[in-house]
Amino acid sequence: MQHYTGPIDRLIEQFSKLPGIGRKTAQRLAFHVINMSENDAMMLSKAISDAKQNVRYCSICCNISEGEKCSVCMNESRDGQIVCVVSDPRDVAALERARDFNGRYHVLHGVISPMDGITPEMIRIKELLHRISNEDINEIIMATNPTIEGEATAMYVAKLIKPMGIKVSRIAHGLPVGGDLEYADEVTISKALEGRREL
Amino acid sequence: MQHYTGPIDRLIEQFSKLPGIGRKTAQRLAFHVINMSENDAMMLSKAISDAKQNVRYCSICCNISEGEKCSVCMNESRDGQIVCVVSDPRDVAALERARDFNGRYHVLHGVISPMDGITPEMIRIKELLHRISNEDINEIIMATNPTIEGEATAMYVAKLIKPMGIKVSRIAHGLPVGGDLEYADEVTISKALEGRREL
Repeated sequence: MQHYTGPIDRLIEQFSKLPGIGRKTAQRLAFHVINMSENDAMMLSKAISDAKQNVRYCSICCNISEGEKCSVCMNESRDGQIVCVVSDPRDVAALERARDFNGRYHVLHGVISPMDGITPEMIRIKELLHRISNEDINEIIMATNPTIEGEATAMYVAKLIKPMGIKVSRIAHGLPVGGDLEYADEVTISKALEGRREL
Repeated sequence: MQHYTGPIDRLIEQFSKLPGIGRKTAQRLAFHVINMSENDAMMLSKAISDAKQNVRYCSICCNISEGEKCSVCMNESRDGQIVCVVSDPRDVAALERARDFNGRYHVLHGVISPMDGITPEMIRIKELLHRISNEDINEIIMATNPTIEGEATAMYVAKLIKPMGIKVSRIAHGLPVGGDLEYADEVTISKALEGRREL
């Protein structure tokens, strides 16, 4: 497929390796780069290398971080006794946007999924158990996604943690705010009924 | 929107400036970069800066090129008497894929479009007229796209060139090979009838 000059072909190839970017889109992006100002192109190039070189995982909660510890773990005003366990750094960002949780986090970096060959050893469960032994933690909130793998991971981790005498909770399932009963799926509706609370 | 660490936010911002990439896709791409191998991330970063720094326009036909002249203009076996005029370097690639044209090209880098504020002076028409005066050219094939702007550009350029005593032709319009009459639009059908040839 050597149709353009070397550097453009190489750029198209690199772009098309990205998820969700096919050959046509990669080609469009590459030509966009050629037509960008020199400065903008360099900023994009540098943002990629910077992000790769300067982002690492927090030594405590495994969230993404610029330094050794992430901003949540360094924030003394956060409650270290309650830890919210999520599967992905993006989930931390989503929870932080809600501004309702003042505890700390633990990022598993995945969920257990035998179908995809992801075993419990491959996600950061060891690190969580280590924290529970060493930190003064009262409650673990399992906030993995309400999918089959997310539920299974929550159950698996809960089973490991409960014998350690720590309270383990699961985020609530139900109708999303602004949602519509008519369009909700059956499982969500039965979860919503099951989780009903007295008014 | 400072939800992640600085380098990731900056990368998301850079990605979301690309055409067709919204905030969610930019976020997904940024996290993909974080999870890439160091080597792959550096290759992507370098491909962008290389393409921007090393790709320029051929001094003759304005096609993209690594050196002063593009590979087509440097190829002595190509017929310099017949020049195919296209609006974009990608069109050169499309024509080269067909392997049917052995002449040279001229890339206008756009089409005349008063609606978008693109006047004839803003595309490489001057350069084409200059070539016609200085090179031994017999025929100009106008291969701009069969859109309103592409047609108008072809007509405009033809009007300029004809008085110079040079044959100007337009690529044929009609049903695409493998196409279906039933699904063809009316304009394509009338163009196909108009352009019919004796068998």
